[in-house]
Amino acid sequence: MLLDVSTAERIIQQHLPNWRVSDVDLAEAGNLSLAQTLAQTIVSDRAYPPYHRVMMDGIAVAWSAYNSGQRIFAIEGLAAAGMPPVTLSDPCACWEVMTGAVLPEGTDLVIPYEELKITGGQATVVQDSPRRSLDYVHLKGSDCSAGQEIMPAGSVINSPRYGILAALGYSQVAICHPPKVELIATGDELVAIAASPEPYQIRSSNVYALRSALHKSGYAEVGIVHLPDDPAAIRQHYQQARTQNQLLIYSGGVSQGKRDYLPQIWQELGVTQLFHGIAQRPGKPMWFGVDQQYQTVIVGLPGNPVSSLVCLHRYFLKLPKIWGKLTEKVVFIPNLTYFLPVQCTYTAQGEITVQPVKWQNSGDFLALADSDGFIELPQERSEFRAGECFPFYGWQ
Amino acid sequence: MLLDVSTAERIIQQHLPNWRVSDVDLAEAGNLSLAQTLAQTIVSDRAYPPYHRVMMDGIAVAWSAYNSGQRIFAIEGLAAAGMPPVTLSDPCACWEVMTGAVLPEGTDLVIPYEELKITGGQATVVQDSPRRSLDYVHLKGSDCSAGQEIMPAGSVINSPRYGILAALGYSQVAICHPPKVELIATGDELVAIAASPEPYQIRSSNVYALRSALHKSGYAEVGIVHLPDDPAAIRQHYQQARTQNQLLIYSGGVSQGKRDYLPQIWQELGVTQLFHGIAQRPGKPMWFGVDQQYQTVIVGLPGNPVSSLVCLHRYFLKLPKIWGKLTEKVVFIPNLTYFLPVQCTYTAQGEITVQPVKWQNSGDFLALADSDGFIELPQERSEFRAGECFPFYGWQ
Repeated sequence: MLLDVSTAERIIQQHLPNWRVSDVDLAEAGNLSLAQTLAQTIVSDRAYPPYHRVMMDGIAVAWSAYNSGQRIFAIEGLAAAGMPPVTLSDPCACWEVMTGAVLPEGTDLVIPYEELKITGGQATVVQDSPRRSLDYVHLKGSDCSAGQEIMPAGSVINSPRYGILAALGYSQVAICHPPKVELIATGDELVAIAASPEPYQIRSSNVYALRSALHKSGYAEVGIVHLPDDPAAIRQHYQQARTQNQLLIYSGGVSQGKRDYLPQIWQELGVTQLFHGIAQRPGKPMWFGVDQQYQTVIVGLPGNPVSSLVCLHRYFLKLPKIWGKLTEKVVFIPNLTYFLPVQCTYTAQGEITVQPVKWQNSGDFLALADSDGFIELPQERSEFRAGECFPFYGWQ
Repeated sequence: MLLDVSTAERIIQQHLPNWRVSDVDLAEAGNLSLAQTLAQTIVSDRAYPPYHRVMMDGIAVAWSAYNSGQRIFAIEGLAAAGMPPVTLSDPCACWEVMTGAVLPEGTDLVIPYEELKITGGQATVVQDSPRRSLDYVHLKGSDCSAGQEIMPAGSVINSPRYGILAALGYSQVAICHPPKVELIATGDELVAIAASPEPYQIRSSNVYALRSALHKSGYAEVGIVHLPDDPAAIRQHYQQARTQNQLLIYSGGVSQGKRDYLPQIWQELGVTQLFHGIAQRPGKPMWFGVDQQYQTVIVGLPGNPVSSLVCLHRYFLKLPKIWGKLTEKVVFIPNLTYFLPVQCTYTAQGEITVQPVKWQNSGDFLALADSDGFIELPQERSEFRAGECFPFYGWQ
């Protein structure tokens, strides 16, 4: 009846909505996340550098003149970055050149200012470093030729890659954007954040935690709705929401309780259930299905705050695959995969260590304030030794 | 003359503008980054759980009745989450209870549905598990008492903490926001991303890479300006910009070149230079100063794309302190701290390994497409062995 974690993961991956591709104006683009990827291959528009590029402020001379012993050079002019190319007319003279300038035609050696004295229109080499032809010259095409693949589709867009896109002239670039999501909080016990709850009520918080994690993972369009435990209201909302979102994530209402109406309502409205229940703690009652007609994916997360955050991170966010080394022995007897909140430390020995946080039970969401994420302890074992490594998921 | 890296870092930290504190509406808040922190201490508004909380769907009974051997209980009613508290009138009866409900007065044991059969208004315990008083009861105040500190000021706002803020009723919460920044590209060689450059021109890309990194680190207000290598234009812009920003980051114009006007112009306009030059590669010409009158911090990054990104990440972004283990020997002779672009791998042994990327020189910015960040190799050494660990800075 209960699926194992890896089967659940596979089913979810098969059915998750594709990210939407749209062009982004690179000059205007706002906050792209590190989860967002290129939807196209990036190729160079021309050779790079596009010209023989001067790499130091100084003078450019002909290697042959320098190599034959000449150390004093008359200056023919100044070549700065952005100036059209110039030509050395006297092979025994020099041009003053600035970093980024086009190397003057007829020169093939740059000597930096630090090794020169310049007076009266003459540059004198005052430091006799060992030199070779093409010193401080960044040769045209030495980084790449025109039409070369620079980044494959699927690359995440970190800041150097953003700069490369700009340099190569991708003023519009096709980028994958996460689907439009609605988060639906269910439960008569829930009141608004700003409300003063009765002693038997609690404030709605799960959907805000989930939204925060989604935002940090690049989801820009995340709606929030609160629904009472009322089948009519749930039905009415669903019929609208499925037409306007690619992904609906419910918090609460999927357990065995008398007020857990969701799975039955979804079924009545034509949603195909793909699973209900995973052999995991927390998060056992998790539900997953697809509304084929509207191509909407439906997720039912348990109402418990720890469960809902763990399930979102484990199954829906694109996180780097990281392993952490357990600092202490853990025993967990039930035949379930155990997601254990931990503090994570990066050591000066290049290791990631993970230390279980003290918590009483999966209702103790305040204990998460001291955690950095959770590790995944496999179902088939019950003892986990200090020093063993397990997959670590960091909180977004 | 050249500062060492740690001295430069200390001077920068002493002068960087404070992050601005402002209240965020938690229900409305958009994208907070993982670099953003709480500007206030968070305390619990009441005990948590705020009542004896039922942890499983099932029935609640008196332990004394169960313990004396009773296994069949008449059902007095249904207590769901969000309902005001109810009381067991007959100590030998039970209430059906849903997860999250208030434990009925007079009961102190929850038995889950899975271990029951319910027919004709009676619940029969059909599975004889070992039980203790308070099973599946999350005791009032067991997570925290009222007025207890839950999160200190300075905590980063990850998703569980966001949820906790909501649960505790912080509908408005004081959060630190990064300063308002302007990025200024200088250089006559630069054209717009959408332009077709002449062979001797390049597209402006540094400021877009820098903005992308700042965005990912929580900077929401990042302006971009392009200036020619023209002292009058630079002066005019500066006199405006310093009144409207807390941090001005220039790209280019701080080297020894004839068109590197910035340090002199800043000095003329009253900026106090705190340093010019760091014993590092890349990024040696970096400049740093403060305009005391306007309380504006001025940064001059080298125009080289690799240098400017490295300097931004090394000195200005709040990144986790991570060490990576070098996969191969590196030799670097100059008496400079060496920032070396690397690929980073998380191993199943809980390690972070870093592999230098092949690059020709710090002008080869395309090579960064294959890197995940850079490591810092200390100035006082020239050989770095495979297996040694060094600080790693990941690209934002």
